[in-house]
Amino acid sequence: MKKVIKNGTIVTASDTYQADLLIENEKITGIGSAATFGNVDDTIDATGCFVFPGGVDPHTHLDMPFGGTVTKDNFETGTIGAAFGGTTTIIDFCLTEKGEPLQKAIQTWHDKSAGKAAIDYSFHLMIGEMTEDVLKELPAVISNEGITSFKVFMAYKNVFQADDATLFETLLKAKELGALVMVHAENGDVIDFLTKQALANGQTDPIYHALTRPVEAEGEATGRACQLTALAGSQLYVVHVTCAEAVKQIEEARKRGADIWGETCPQYLVLDEEALRKADFEGAKYVWSPPLRPKEHQDTLWNALKTGGLQTIGSDQCSFDFDGQKSLGKDDFTKIPNGGPIIEDRMSIVYSEGVEKGRISLNQFVDVTSTRAAKLFGMYPKKGSISVGADADLVLFDPSIERTLSVTSHHLAVDYNAFEGMQVKGVPRTVLSRGQVIVHDGSYTGLPGDGVFIKRARYGNTLSNDRVKL
Amino acid sequence: MKKVIKNGTIVTASDTYQADLLIENEKITGIGSAATFGNVDDTIDATGCFVFPGGVDPHTHLDMPFGGTVTKDNFETGTIGAAFGGTTTIIDFCLTEKGEPLQKAIQTWHDKSAGKAAIDYSFHLMIGEMTEDVLKELPAVISNEGITSFKVFMAYKNVFQADDATLFETLLKAKELGALVMVHAENGDVIDFLTKQALANGQTDPIYHALTRPVEAEGEATGRACQLTALAGSQLYVVHVTCAEAVKQIEEARKRGADIWGETCPQYLVLDEEALRKADFEGAKYVWSPPLRPKEHQDTLWNALKTGGLQTIGSDQCSFDFDGQKSLGKDDFTKIPNGGPIIEDRMSIVYSEGVEKGRISLNQFVDVTSTRAAKLFGMYPKKGSISVGADADLVLFDPSIERTLSVTSHHLAVDYNAFEGMQVKGVPRTVLSRGQVIVHDGSYTGLPGDGVFIKRARYGNTLSNDRVKL
Amino acid sequence: MKKVIKNGTIVTASDTYQADLLIENEKITGIGSAATFGNVDDTIDATGCFVFPGGVDPHTHLDMPFGGTVTKDNFETGTIGAAFGGTTTIIDFCLTEKGEPLQKAIQTWHDKSAGKAAIDYSFHLMIGEMTEDVLKELPAVISNEGITSFKVFMAYKNVFQADDATLFETLLKAKELGALVMVHAENGDVIDFLTKQALANGQTDPIYHALTRPVEAEGEATGRACQLTALAGSQLYVVHVTCAEAVKQIEEARKRGADIWGETCPQYLVLDEEALRKADFEGAKYVWSPPLRPKEHQDTLWNALKTGGLQTIGSDQCSFDFDGQKSLGKDDFTKIPNGGPIIEDRMSIVYSEGVEKGRISLNQFVDVTSTRAAKLFGMYPKKGSISVGADADLVLFDPSIERTLSVTSHHLAVDYNAFEGMQVKGVPRTVLSRGQVIVHDGSYTGLPGDGVFIKRARYGNTLSNDRVKL
Amino acid sequence: MKKVIKNGTIVTASDTYQADLLIENEKITGIGSAATFGNVDDTIDATGCFVFPGGVDPHTHLDMPFGGTVTKDNFETGTIGAAFGGTTTIIDFCLTEKGEPLQKAIQTWHDKSAGKAAIDYSFHLMIGEMTEDVLKELPAVISNEGITSFKVFMAYKNVFQADDATLFETLLKAKELGALVMVHAENGDVIDFLTKQALANGQTDPIYHALTRPVEAEGEATGRACQLTALAGSQLYVVHVTCAEAVKQIEEARKRGADIWGETCPQYLVLDEEALRKADFEGAKYVWSPPLRPKEHQDTLWNALKTGGLQTIGSDQCSFDFDGQKSLGKDDFTKIPNGGPIIEDRMSIVYSEGVEKGRISLNQFVDVTSTRAAKLFGMYPKKGSISVGADADLVLFDPSIERTLSVTSHHLAVDYNAFEGMQVKGVPRTVLSRGQVIVHDGSYTGLPGDGVFIKRARYGNTLSNDRVKL
Repeated sequence: MKKVIKNGTIVTASDTYQADLLIENEKITGIGSAATFGNVDDTIDATGCFVFPGGVDPHTHLDMPFGGTVTKDNFETGTIGAAFGGTTTIIDFCLTEKGEPLQKAIQTWHDKSAGKAAIDYSFHLMIGEMTEDVLKELPAVISNEGITSFKVFMAYKNVFQADDATLFETLLKAKELGALVMVHAENGDVIDFLTKQALANGQTDPIYHALTRPVEAEGEATGRACQLTALAGSQLYVVHVTCAEAVKQIEEARKRGADIWGETCPQYLVLDEEALRKADFEGAKYVWSPPLRPKEHQDTLWNALKTGGLQTIGSDQCSFDFDGQKSLGKDDFTKIPNGGPIIEDRMSIVYSEGVEKGRISLNQFVDVTSTRAAKLFGMYPKKGSISVGADADLVLFDPSIERTLSVTSHHLAVDYNAFEGMQVKGVPRTVLSRGQVIVHDGSYTGLPGDGVFIKRARYGNTLSNDRVKL
Repeated sequence: MKKVIKNGTIVTASDTYQADLLIENEKITGIGSAATFGNVDDTIDATGCFVFPGGVDPHTHLDMPFGGTVTKDNFETGTIGAAFGGTTTIIDFCLTEKGEPLQKAIQTWHDKSAGKAAIDYSFHLMIGEMTEDVLKELPAVISNEGITSFKVFMAYKNVFQADDATLFETLLKAKELGALVMVHAENGDVIDFLTKQALANGQTDPIYHALTRPVEAEGEATGRACQLTALAGSQLYVVHVTCAEAVKQIEEARKRGADIWGETCPQYLVLDEEALRKADFEGAKYVWSPPLRPKEHQDTLWNALKTGGLQTIGSDQCSFDFDGQKSLGKDDFTKIPNGGPIIEDRMSIVYSEGVEKGRISLNQFVDVTSTRAAKLFGMYPKKGSISVGADADLVLFDPSIERTLSVTSHHLAVDYNAFEGMQVKGVPRTVLSRGQVIVHDGSYTGLPGDGVFIKRARYGNTLSNDRVKL
Repeated sequence: MKKVIKNGTIVTASDTYQADLLIENEKITGIGSAATFGNVDDTIDATGCFVFPGGVDPHTHLDMPFGGTVTKDNFETGTIGAAFGGTTTIIDFCLTEKGEPLQKAIQTWHDKSAGKAAIDYSFHLMIGEMTEDVLKELPAVISNEGITSFKVFMAYKNVFQADDATLFETLLKAKELGALVMVHAENGDVIDFLTKQALANGQTDPIYHALTRPVEAEGEATGRACQLTALAGSQLYVVHVTCAEAVKQIEEARKRGADIWGETCPQYLVLDEEALRKADFEGAKYVWSPPLRPKEHQDTLWNALKTGGLQTIGSDQCSFDFDGQKSLGKDDFTKIPNGGPIIEDRMSIVYSEGVEKGRISLNQFVDVTSTRAAKLFGMYPKKGSISVGADADLVLFDPSIERTLSVTSHHLAVDYNAFEGMQVKGVPRTVLSRGQVIVHDGSYTGLPGDGVFIKRARYGNTLSNDRVKL
Repeated sequence: MKKVIKNGTIVTASDTYQADLLIENEKITGIGSAATFGNVDDTIDATGCFVFPGGVDPHTHLDMPFGGTVTKDNFETGTIGAAFGGTTTIIDFCLTEKGEPLQKAIQTWHDKSAGKAAIDYSFHLMIGEMTEDVLKELPAVISNEGITSFKVFMAYKNVFQADDATLFETLLKAKELGALVMVHAENGDVIDFLTKQALANGQTDPIYHALTRPVEAEGEATGRACQLTALAGSQLYVVHVTCAEAVKQIEEARKRGADIWGETCPQYLVLDEEALRKADFEGAKYVWSPPLRPKEHQDTLWNALKTGGLQTIGSDQCSFDFDGQKSLGKDDFTKIPNGGPIIEDRMSIVYSEGVEKGRISLNQFVDVTSTRAAKLFGMYPKKGSISVGADADLVLFDPSIERTLSVTSHHLAVDYNAFEGMQVKGVPRTVLSRGQVIVHDGSYTGLPGDGVFIKRARYGNTLSNDRVKL
């Protein structure tokens, strides 16, 4: 079956041009003039649209237990939302428990996702401690499961937090095996102390979530992770970077030649700390970790995306209902489940605030929302690319339409939208996953379960010709 | 007439994939499988080859008078050499004289190049002083000539050197008109003093060329140009960056949000100051300005290319025969004509030392040698791109072949090769300019005059959708 | 004749302790208990007072022609004001004219000061160009006149401004002869352009003085001077540092090992740019070059004084009447004579805002207002020190008294006070110059002409044991 | 009883001058001419000598258990050695054990020192964990014992190492109580891992001590401690800084306004990593933690002392015999007791390599070896000062004599000298402790037990007038 996308403006991480696309067997097989493609079964008109490679969201938490509850959005609702937003691949975090086999956790995540995901997906694997058992399991995790990225938490004391020995050994092991280590970089000890102190002082409102997780705690931990990576000669990906101090640490390490990458998220680019002060406990909707920061950090983040200090944008999707879930923390901010819904609006926000407002270029937009993550996480050029042979994961994005982000129009299960009322320019009109139209003109035309699990290549081996770490 | 390039691996500034290319009317019209392209007139087999967009060399001096002599290579020999090396577009520097109309200088450069160039070309325009007459002429230079970049020299006292007032006013005017200001950043006053002092001390050997142009003189001037650009809110391109201090100035300015770009050259990446000490006056072959630097600067330059601190690689081609030209400075290093032959070997050196040795990725190679310069200087996507609609300027590059750079095998008129004896991996097997094969298997198959003058778009307006400075 | 200062708290640049001082023949001869000093001719009670070494103000302009007028305060009124403020030594700037012998300018300055100065004084010598004649004269300037510091202006285009060649050669010559080079670091070319542009736009109010001299112009020139100094291996003193960017340049150069020192002034520590916007042309009172800066720079300056990034505080005294002098620029800010009266209030402001508010320590206060300048400019330990053998230049400073700075109470000739209405803590109750009480309880008890010219030692040779640059 | 020191050159942290000193009742009571001091009981001739305030060594370990053995030098031999070297006050580290009352540890240290010390002394108190009990005891430790500095170890995993929560809470508590927090800044987790790995690889030689404690581990921990201090708004003193990365962290934090101080030690200024490679296990003599570093770090340390990035020099005296103690690690470098003998040679090395070689000034020498530590640790002006009222702790230092450091001439009990064979200029000819000559012309003339325990003032309260942290 042959399908054509016609009259669009193709945009890659480096190029922008008018051309038609031919799709056969889930893949892009031709770029040129539709007139030369012969008879086709289906033609999609992309007039007035950019044609982007489908978004790759390297940071989601779907169907994830947290603080006694579970995220409202699971692999079905979450990936449908993602699809509406133009994202066609996600990498979710598979949480492990100390003492349990890694394979058990991976199986749990397969069970959560199989038959439900609307788009393709993979998993990062959390490393909570580095025992003999864990060391033994890791080679198979990479070879058999194609899971080539490990997540280490420097925060959430007594829950996820690993010590420096674990982080360091994970870095060394990852280097040996060809995996990319990811860190949540906040100093958990300091945060734990400040949190207890705040509660002891009766400071229970959502704003104290931000005030007990200061930028120094993130800057410090980011610097520490960078130093350990440089020492190990390994590779690092810092998730959800929020502040100038953390950006500085990453930039300096990169300048010294360290192989380090940084991700930020839409919420840190457009929202700020003041949101946590909203009345009637509404601030709880804006409880992320790390927290939203004072507004002046936004310029630093945008400029880092533009000049290469940060390289990707993940969503850190992790949604909890305001009623019944966020409300668990009504009298104690530490009981507010952390996170919010962004998986659907990620690309629209970055396009509108980034490209439309002249902060990043159109090609950089594609790079930070799709191509770079595909490369770093071993899915390129299958994902993240408009090129012959790539999966036909495509977004026909109409930049002329203005719309308002809202819970009333989003497609997630969660009961609020963190960007409620925000005006954005541009809408993902048609979204294809491996050649199949799964979203068109506001309707979901796919089926949960269309998405398949992607086994990923080892770090740095995405393409034999691309000898440097991309 | 239809032409196909078959079985190659296409490499762009972001993507790498297997596909065939269809060429019609000088342009790329299809990317896909040759089987679907119908009957074609010509098929070029690219098996085993990378297919790169033709190189864009933003920094050449052909047929240029300097110190009482004229560069050995002119627009004919220089561009034929360029073509052999895989470069299909150059931008040469049009020198002006104080008091003379700009248009006169431009006409001189048209006269030098018309009917001679083997590949497409454009000009940068030197600004030596900012008079009322110059101010009046500039709008037409941009509108009529499509010359959208101005060069200001901070060195060569009493010859090319402009004062800070001229640089600052040029920055402001360029901002208004949509041009990119280029600087040769060395402190000419300091160099002039040190040079005279050296001669007074009887220090006449070539090495004194390097010793009288210290890194501080370049670091200082680079910082000064960056500060003036930031103050003007304008845009700057620093040519031939050679040392860590200059890189630092550019990186810091970019981090503060300034719109600044940096170029380095192959000679600074692989040669070092010691070359100027070669016996029998051979050091004269290595006299560039700025000079070659101590070896430790090379890592900084490579890492800046990798992490985004520098963005392009020009050749600064400016060749003079060792016998009869360089020899003018036998007894006085200040009389050695500055410059050397690099236009032909630029891409091979960067590929071999950069990609093969893992210092930059294959896609970064394309970006720094071709795409980025095309974007910055208003020729994109016509140049610097493998995409539908782009000029079919292409290089079929065989990475498997090892060869030795030498005057005996290069195609320039000059009587020596600055990289004599250097082993490189990879050879540009076939080179096409607007669809025409001009080099194939070591033979020049084009005609001088094939190349045409390119009128360039204003800075930042290359493509309306690419709103940020790329 | 023996004199005792009793019951005071002696404060030096490193120590603070209770002791009495014995003075004989203009010098301190004993520190201990007055009871052991034998019979004395005079006893001054310092109960409740700090006893500081008399202030050394390394930066004054008295009886100086500027823009067609002459500073209101001359060596008589200016030094009497200084004495009231606790300053017992000044170094004034001897301006030279291109083409005239240096000795002629020095003689002019001797004529201005001899028989008039109430306190001891010396001169810095301006270098406007570096000709053969100047080179020939310099050794005698140092040997015979004891003038061991040279001032180079990077601003005031077409008036004082020297080019980089002059600055660089001055640095080299100073290194050879043992002198300290001082720079006024602002980019004169840029300022000249911005100034003309402002006037062309009809922007004539005092605030445009600040807006046409942006921090980038100072940061750039400071960095340039630092780079040239490092290259020359010479020594540099940057006068009147006003902003974060300039501090950064000095700190970075010092960290690289360069022998560079920085001075700021009280006005930059406590006043800000907004003052230039005062109505009724009052902004003209606050026209200094460099200009007052936005308030956020003050913290950086204070912290640099505290942590060693800046080392001295000069006044840059240069007073012009508001009526009749500043008013020359009523319709054109470029005609406002630059400068203001600070010589008298310098120490009180720094004590009150620095020590009282906890920004610097009491010992640092002594260092930055007295000792360090004496050391750097070759007058130590004669000046700047409370030690046996030092000149008995002393200030009995009562920190308990609050007072208000005002034109009505100051002792200068000028018709306004730049700090009018400012409350300060502390008053110099008694001031001694070489053992003679010249100010006591608000009365001047000396005679103009008491002050003598001080021939200064070469840079770095203040004390043979102090082998490093202090 | 009156005593006079005659004909010396007095040197303080800011001043240098010729004068005689009068001593009565253990204190300095007069500075001036001996002729005016009346009849005295004793006159010491200091002709040709500098008279320094007695050295204050803020970092010693005497009679300290470590790795199953005890330092060879105890409070008797150690302080006699110190006295010979010109040090008249030490602050030793009182080690605590988790779960034991602090007061018990303090009593142990009193027992070790009382009746033995030849010079005055105080203790820092180690904080290993921050429990309710510890919190309760701290106020009395300060008020009753005058112990106003707490030491936290970030290294020595499972032995001394505290977690970040403990460090952070100690910082907050110290701020509240007026104490100074000291850190041993190395990442213990990383070192623990690398150490085990080395042993597993059979790497047992002394050099592996250095190779398993890389500069990144120190740089990281230093940065972490600085960030936590800034966040706490508290005060920090980083002990034994050895490398450029750590210096950078301290300097940057100070520039941001943090109240942070850094100490280095003579061994890091003059010895380097290569020493650990000496044959026949001799490398064990050079096993310190942090380890000696590659030679290039020495320039950074010296320049930081000169420009204010580091402020003190401690010895980190901790001596173990080569035979019988260091030899415990013959087959396993981790069993080599850490540390070496420096208490005696500290001042001579810094004078000779610092002042004589022009790296720091004579006054800076006094500041970094004596005055600054006295101020920071609440003993000023009693200690660290030549001023009326100060303890007559004095060193008559003859700078003209050259001598060779050696185990054959030093006065410690330990069986080797880490600086064996090093030539130094200058010898402490006569040393006085509270007016008593305890060392003269190579003989010890005091008695163990002469030294008394010093209760120290709270941090920042040394002198009410010195409002900033000195």
